Amino acid sequence: MGNSRKAVVLMSGGMDSAVTAAIVINQNYEIFALHITYEQRTQERELRAFKELCSYYKIENSLIVSIDYLKKIGGSALVEPSIEIELANFERKMIPRTYVPFRNGNLLSIAASWAEVVSANAIFIGAVEADSSGYPDCRKSFFEAFEKAINEGTKPETNIKIMTPLINMSKKDIVLLGLELGVPFELTWSCYKEIEFACGECDSCALRLRGFQQAGAEDPLKYLRKPNYL
Amino acid sequence: MGNSRKAVVLMSGGMDSAVTAAIVINQNYEIFALHITYEQRTQERELRAFKELCSYYKIENSLIVSIDYLKKIGGSALVEPSIEIELANFERKMIPRTYVPFRNGNLLSIAASWAEVVSANAIFIGAVEADSSGYPDCRKSFFEAFEKAINEGTKPETNIKIMTPLINMSKKDIVLLGLELGVPFELTWSCYKEIEFACGECDSCALRLRGFQQAGAEDPLKYLRKPNYL
Repeated sequence: MGNSRKAVVLMSGGMDSAVTAAIVINQNYEIFALHITYEQRTQERELRAFKELCSYYKIENSLIVSIDYLKKIGGSALVEPSIEIELANFERKMIPRTYVPFRNGNLLSIAASWAEVVSANAIFIGAVEADSSGYPDCRKSFFEAFEKAINEGTKPETNIKIMTPLINMSKKDIVLLGLELGVPFELTWSCYKEIEFACGECDSCALRLRGFQQAGAEDPLKYLRKPNYL
Repeated sequence: MGNSRKAVVLMSGGMDSAVTAAIVINQNYEIFALHITYEQRTQERELRAFKELCSYYKIENSLIVSIDYLKKIGGSALVEPSIEIELANFERKMIPRTYVPFRNGNLLSIAASWAEVVSANAIFIGAVEADSSGYPDCRKSFFEAFEKAINEGTKPETNIKIMTPLINMSKKDIVLLGLELGVPFELTWSCYKEIEFACGECDSCALRLRGFQQAGAEDPLKYLRKPNYL
């Protein structure tokens, strides 16, 4: 086949990053799959999802990075057991407590270091701005600013684009695209809280379940509760 | 005294970050000292310098973060023993092998996460563009772009400035300023290579020694060799 282009792909093991990986593979990039654990509650389950996706897609270049400092720094329900994860609420205007301060800046910096060393010219991240929890580090404007910072802070011959193919998509359309690309949704994990059965009531479960529902499809994951979000 | 402002200060334990810390303390900020080890060759010695500086300045808020992924990712003589550290050369035009790909992006992301959680409004970094090795992530344009990325990727109420007070200074002027501020240079460490006596011939030693020489001052550190750089 002969891939001329290389891409680092941030893969949490969730639905969005799995669809993103499928897009990248479809576009004939050589893929460098990057998974970052940060002592978040569901770390083991997400890592398993990442490994199973890599194995499903026969990804040869993968890197697992474990950073514990986001937990030390705290400030988020995802890393501090004492902060409760709020129930999903599609009307919420505030930034939810699950926001991990500047997490995506940290993830993209790691991706940029790896991309520069392996001469990749793209970093893919499955961030969603439209149909999301409203995290500031998932906005298009953030990725544009960060791309500029990467190119100002690396060698002249390094030229890295941050690609966010899902940024303006609804969860419904992400599900539909994933189904079209044959994404093994049964291997992915999105829940913030639980690791055996998904809780069904955190933001991440709610957005996912609503996406499947609107797409008229069945989510293959098992849920503790499956509220009707419509 | 009553500090109204908080600042995260990146402190490697080197001369430049020690002078930067002295500036911050002088400006009456509440200081949050951040030290990051990344499995670089002189990690233990730099950590000791950081701790001794914190204790000298009676810094109460400090955070030591250890990241090993920059070594895993590689691409730099500072983390790969198989890549030799080149001798200092003030005429060199190439980016030296000691450049750690996008290191400062990684460091600033960690600083930004901490700054957001503790409500600091500034991150200080002792980067020098003028009289330096020419690392791309030490340029003013990089810090400007990164500051924008931080503010696009954090909460609306978070407003963080990246402060680079030394960016346009010569090493001579940094030494003079440090002496004026009473910086305990004997506690700092700059050498890339050695941990007991400084090597005197890596870029970092050379820039430091030339700075002291031009300032007409004596560097209190012990060197294996002390070439005359003028």
